[in-house]
Amino acid sequence: MARFFMAGTNLFGSPTAIIRGRDAEHIHVLRIRPGEDVVICDTEGSDYKCRLVRSDKEEAELEVLEVVPCKGEPSVAVTVLCGLPKGDRVDYIIQKSVEAGAHDIVFFLSSRCVARPSDPYKKLERWNRISEEAAKQSGRGIIPSVTWAEDYGEVLNTAVHTDLPLFMYETGEREALSSVLEARKDIRTAAVITGPEGGFEAFEADLARIAGLHICSMGERILRCETAPVVAVTALMYATGNLS
Amino acid sequence: MARFFMAGTNLFGSPTAIIRGRDAEHIHVLRIRPGEDVVICDTEGSDYKCRLVRSDKEEAELEVLEVVPCKGEPSVAVTVLCGLPKGDRVDYIIQKSVEAGAHDIVFFLSSRCVARPSDPYKKLERWNRISEEAAKQSGRGIIPSVTWAEDYGEVLNTAVHTDLPLFMYETGEREALSSVLEARKDIRTAAVITGPEGGFEAFEADLARIAGLHICSMGERILRCETAPVVAVTALMYATGNLS
Repeated sequence: MARFFMAGTNLFGSPTAIIRGRDAEHIHVLRIRPGEDVVICDTEGSDYKCRLVRSDKEEAELEVLEVVPCKGEPSVAVTVLCGLPKGDRVDYIIQKSVEAGAHDIVFFLSSRCVARPSDPYKKLERWNRISEEAAKQSGRGIIPSVTWAEDYGEVLNTAVHTDLPLFMYETGEREALSSVLEARKDIRTAAVITGPEGGFEAFEADLARIAGLHICSMGERILRCETAPVVAVTALMYATGNLS
Repeated sequence: MARFFMAGTNLFGSPTAIIRGRDAEHIHVLRIRPGEDVVICDTEGSDYKCRLVRSDKEEAELEVLEVVPCKGEPSVAVTVLCGLPKGDRVDYIIQKSVEAGAHDIVFFLSSRCVARPSDPYKKLERWNRISEEAAKQSGRGIIPSVTWAEDYGEVLNTAVHTDLPLFMYETGEREALSSVLEARKDIRTAAVITGPEGGFEAFEADLARIAGLHICSMGERILRCETAPVVAVTALMYATGNLS
């Protein structure tokens, strides 16, 4: 069934929905006929099952049949925080994290980042478009936001305000991701911090430890910086029963 | 520590190892000095910790200090079988499956495959190079083979000869991946079958069911064909204690 995101929509209680602009045109292009059903997602986790009443290029009118929680939304909101990698690895991290079930994605500069954009905020629009596309394609109930964190303190602060803040690190004394997750199946929020191409400096891991994050290992295989987030989110989804 | 694959190496019992050709040149280029240590992996799961005795562009002599099982190898050998996708999605599936811990990767043509190479065997050399690079980078103890299956029967046959054959499917009656895995933590081998861009035809899922595969769901989010394998392998690694 065709699925549309309408950010900020609040159809609750309304018998009919009016879609204008790009989505109306999209309904027209898809040749959806009156009487056919579509799903409108309010991007806040609710799906509105609707039946098309009429449509043209400018506007579509739909009858709201049912409002249900979007099944595509996991029970745990995972924030992915990544040291900015080079080039299209960013696009990749966004797309795969959204598919895997991430709630939002934050990029930041750490010591070993090679990419040093003069104005990262300029990139946010494009990055959020990638997230929206991935969210539509994978049937998410929200469009995970992609944001920029000014400094590492802000990153750690965001993480420690979740139920389970995790810092993925390749060396030294670490907890097994599995043992950390087994103990906390009840979490509602979590954060996963992963590094850029060169990984993190020891002091960055130390700061995370001091801040109270779990310094975690994801096994003996060394994951590329663009692979670590999707693996971590998948493990979290699996451990919290969101992969079935 | 620098790490080299030497396929077919059998250094066991030998006090010294001689490296020639590309790897000898590599040692030379890396400016590894006599007295420094390197790891030679025999691509069969063993690491040979060696100390460089002498080296030039053509040949390097090393003293074998210790032979240990490669920590990068998971306890379960997962065979990934994928309906051939288009373009660089193949490269992506190979690289990420190897990083995630797959034992070998098999591509095949299913009903909805868009890519229809006239001679897929021509591509195997390049595909296996991608696997070798990913294996080196991620610290694997083997180089997962990438092969081509002539027909779907061969694919199902390969899968059912593992301890846990899984068929990832997006609709209909399915088992939760988690419940299937929870019941089988002791497995030594497993197979994961995933589809091409358009997924599988119902009859392909039916055949898998009849053949005795577990028809599995990986949750409510729709994964791209190139994302499903890495998510499935990661879930398997997590469930079998190979992600810590």
